[in-house]
Amino acid sequence: MKKNLREINISTEDIPTSWYNILPDLPTPLPPPKGDEQLKLLPEMMILECLKQESSPDRWIEIPDGIRQLYLQAGRPRPLFRALNLEKALGTPARLYYKSEFYSPTGSHKVNTALAQAYYAREQGCERLTTETGAGQWGTALAYATSIVGLKCTVFWVRAVYQWKHSRRNLMQIYGAEVNASPSDKTEVGKLLVKDNPDHPGSLAIAISEGLEDAKNDPKAVYSLGSVLNHVLIHQSIIGLETQLQFEMIDEYPDVMISCLGGGSNFGGFVIPFVGDVLTKGKKIQFIAAQSEAAPNLQGTYRYNFADYAKLTPQLKMYTLGHMFEMPPIRGDGLRYHGCAPIISLLRDEGYIDTVAYPVDEKYVFEKGKLFTQTEGFLPAPESAYSIACAIDEANKCKESGEEKVIAFNVSGHGFMDMVGFRKVLGLE
Amino acid sequence: MKKNLREINISTEDIPTSWYNILPDLPTPLPPPKGDEQLKLLPEMMILECLKQESSPDRWIEIPDGIRQLYLQAGRPRPLFRALNLEKALGTPARLYYKSEFYSPTGSHKVNTALAQAYYAREQGCERLTTETGAGQWGTALAYATSIVGLKCTVFWVRAVYQWKHSRRNLMQIYGAEVNASPSDKTEVGKLLVKDNPDHPGSLAIAISEGLEDAKNDPKAVYSLGSVLNHVLIHQSIIGLETQLQFEMIDEYPDVMISCLGGGSNFGGFVIPFVGDVLTKGKKIQFIAAQSEAAPNLQGTYRYNFADYAKLTPQLKMYTLGHMFEMPPIRGDGLRYHGCAPIISLLRDEGYIDTVAYPVDEKYVFEKGKLFTQTEGFLPAPESAYSIACAIDEANKCKESGEEKVIAFNVSGHGFMDMVGFRKVLGLE
Repeated sequence: MKKNLREINISTEDIPTSWYNILPDLPTPLPPPKGDEQLKLLPEMMILECLKQESSPDRWIEIPDGIRQLYLQAGRPRPLFRALNLEKALGTPARLYYKSEFYSPTGSHKVNTALAQAYYAREQGCERLTTETGAGQWGTALAYATSIVGLKCTVFWVRAVYQWKHSRRNLMQIYGAEVNASPSDKTEVGKLLVKDNPDHPGSLAIAISEGLEDAKNDPKAVYSLGSVLNHVLIHQSIIGLETQLQFEMIDEYPDVMISCLGGGSNFGGFVIPFVGDVLTKGKKIQFIAAQSEAAPNLQGTYRYNFADYAKLTPQLKMYTLGHMFEMPPIRGDGLRYHGCAPIISLLRDEGYIDTVAYPVDEKYVFEKGKLFTQTEGFLPAPESAYSIACAIDEANKCKESGEEKVIAFNVSGHGFMDMVGFRKVLGLE
Repeated sequence: MKKNLREINISTEDIPTSWYNILPDLPTPLPPPKGDEQLKLLPEMMILECLKQESSPDRWIEIPDGIRQLYLQAGRPRPLFRALNLEKALGTPARLYYKSEFYSPTGSHKVNTALAQAYYAREQGCERLTTETGAGQWGTALAYATSIVGLKCTVFWVRAVYQWKHSRRNLMQIYGAEVNASPSDKTEVGKLLVKDNPDHPGSLAIAISEGLEDAKNDPKAVYSLGSVLNHVLIHQSIIGLETQLQFEMIDEYPDVMISCLGGGSNFGGFVIPFVGDVLTKGKKIQFIAAQSEAAPNLQGTYRYNFADYAKLTPQLKMYTLGHMFEMPPIRGDGLRYHGCAPIISLLRDEGYIDTVAYPVDEKYVFEKGKLFTQTEGFLPAPESAYSIACAIDEANKCKESGEEKVIAFNVSGHGFMDMVGFRKVLGLE
């Protein structure tokens, strides 16, 4: 009967005390970053504890009590829901479960690493964090975390998105952040691009370059990244670790795990503790990354590449479309990034991660997001609608085959501030 | 130490099994509704189980398992948070706690009665629910609940608000509801008003009249009200009942309880189980309703009055400004209603409820909402910012007096879909 619970949650006292670091459990060693000049600059521009975690050999990294308190204040642990209504609507024998990262104060999983990074930055005496944002989820999360922790925040936001996500911009301002459309005239790299084209739509790679340059020129500022890097995936492992405890509570275990993937932070956070089970405990799970054909980086090539446009970052070995790759605009903007996190890229190269990419017009994906909203009640972020579409596709395969698979997917954020996207794609008035 | 927990929650299994009905515990009997003609029509237009609950003498009303399942699916129980960061920012010796009704799928407490009403309506064979909405919180909640339960939904939405809350309108449409700006040309009462003024801004009282007329003319439809009535307060008691269990967990008890009040559903749901403690267990609590000077109904007169504009409802004994009272527009639109729930009105008349009203320009209230967002991280609905402003005022009084009061307030909804209000009032770009 326990399996028919609609909502499964651990108690606030049982929230995990350590994050999981998969580095020591990987099937082959993770290729290190490259670029002497860039690597030399990192300690000046980055949070030192994060830099340390980036190459930590420790499987478990203790979550400082201060950060656990911040997680509680942000409403963790977050429930795991059984999607009984959606199952019924689909007529599938599969059992569907979704994790509710949309319950975050800013509406996305990004707060899990934003709070950790802001905490560590304050501990080392830093006064300001700079960052980039694409969809705006990360910029909002860092604006929130710095406000809670007591730091200043400067956000460089891809102009094409900055312009249509007015509510999200206002929320960052309420948190007290300075928000710039990128490319901006605040940095040398931005000035060059704006000079050529004042309405330059920008890209995540350009915005990263601006954030890095801004931090480099201010000794009291450090740069904070919301995806791709190992320490970000470590912090996000809280999602999957909670999910493991929740599945234990109901004596259930996933056969398939799905989430959307841009840079890889929500996908990684959700699945990596379970990848650990596969690597060390002989478990079998199919992992699927839901992407957009606008930026199917897991279908790119596995090679060393820069994380930003201006080559300020070291080169990372990752699946990439190239750091100057031009991507068409989509509403699920958080999925528009040229490269995938090195850890996930390695796992993909070793055959552990499958991927699917959905068409750029997004009609199919948004219709599935609508079906989820109508049956389960929660409005997903455009990006999370990709997770949902993929989970529905897998549930429909089970309908054909008759398999009673357990399918778990992550709903990484809510769509309340991205309603314009639903309006345009679904043709609402 | 337990008192310093930032997040307090009961387990999903401990969610209350009965709602609380204060009728048998009131200090004097509740004056019954008046109006033979209107009362005769009620069984045709209203949900029968709700009509029964309206005058039930039972202190405890069992929550059917089907509705408890719906509550779980909607993410109940909702955490009680200790506002440690806000306390610190204020420098108050008071201990502040807030209930997180903003965690609802549609972003407000309204789902608590919407799910119950939709469930009962389906059980009695009804196919469609009609309703009014002012701020849009109720319309969204009923659109959600009918979608989950499998009914149709028609919403009449006060035109002045319909026009600026575009995202909320789209969300109702995603849930499959038909949404009309009110007054509309779908009803006789609406036609009359639109004929005189096609851009008539509407009012909640007019929208109620339209919803009632629409239900009256369709044997398969019933009308559903989101506030004011006794059965609505019964369903909303789930908020206060959970809060009681959460305070018990940390061995704490409130000295002051605060929430915003329009018709009274979130205020009533939050405080009424505690009023029961005061009436039957000798507890002492100060209850404060936070209102707008645009509609300070608790400062009106205590008399029989209609709940709607066209006199289709019975007359209720309540604090009222008069059913044709014209109110200036405010962003906290959910507080714009001419009358207060009869139960709360009686308690006010008996001296149990205090009230405060904030200026129509809303600057003070929105600034306090901003402070809450910057310290606690959650963006409140404009209406909920009134609860917050009042809680901060009380916390500041404690700072002056040195009293370590326990102040509990309800954050009835989130503001993600009402950002235009913050933008205008706070002067954001």
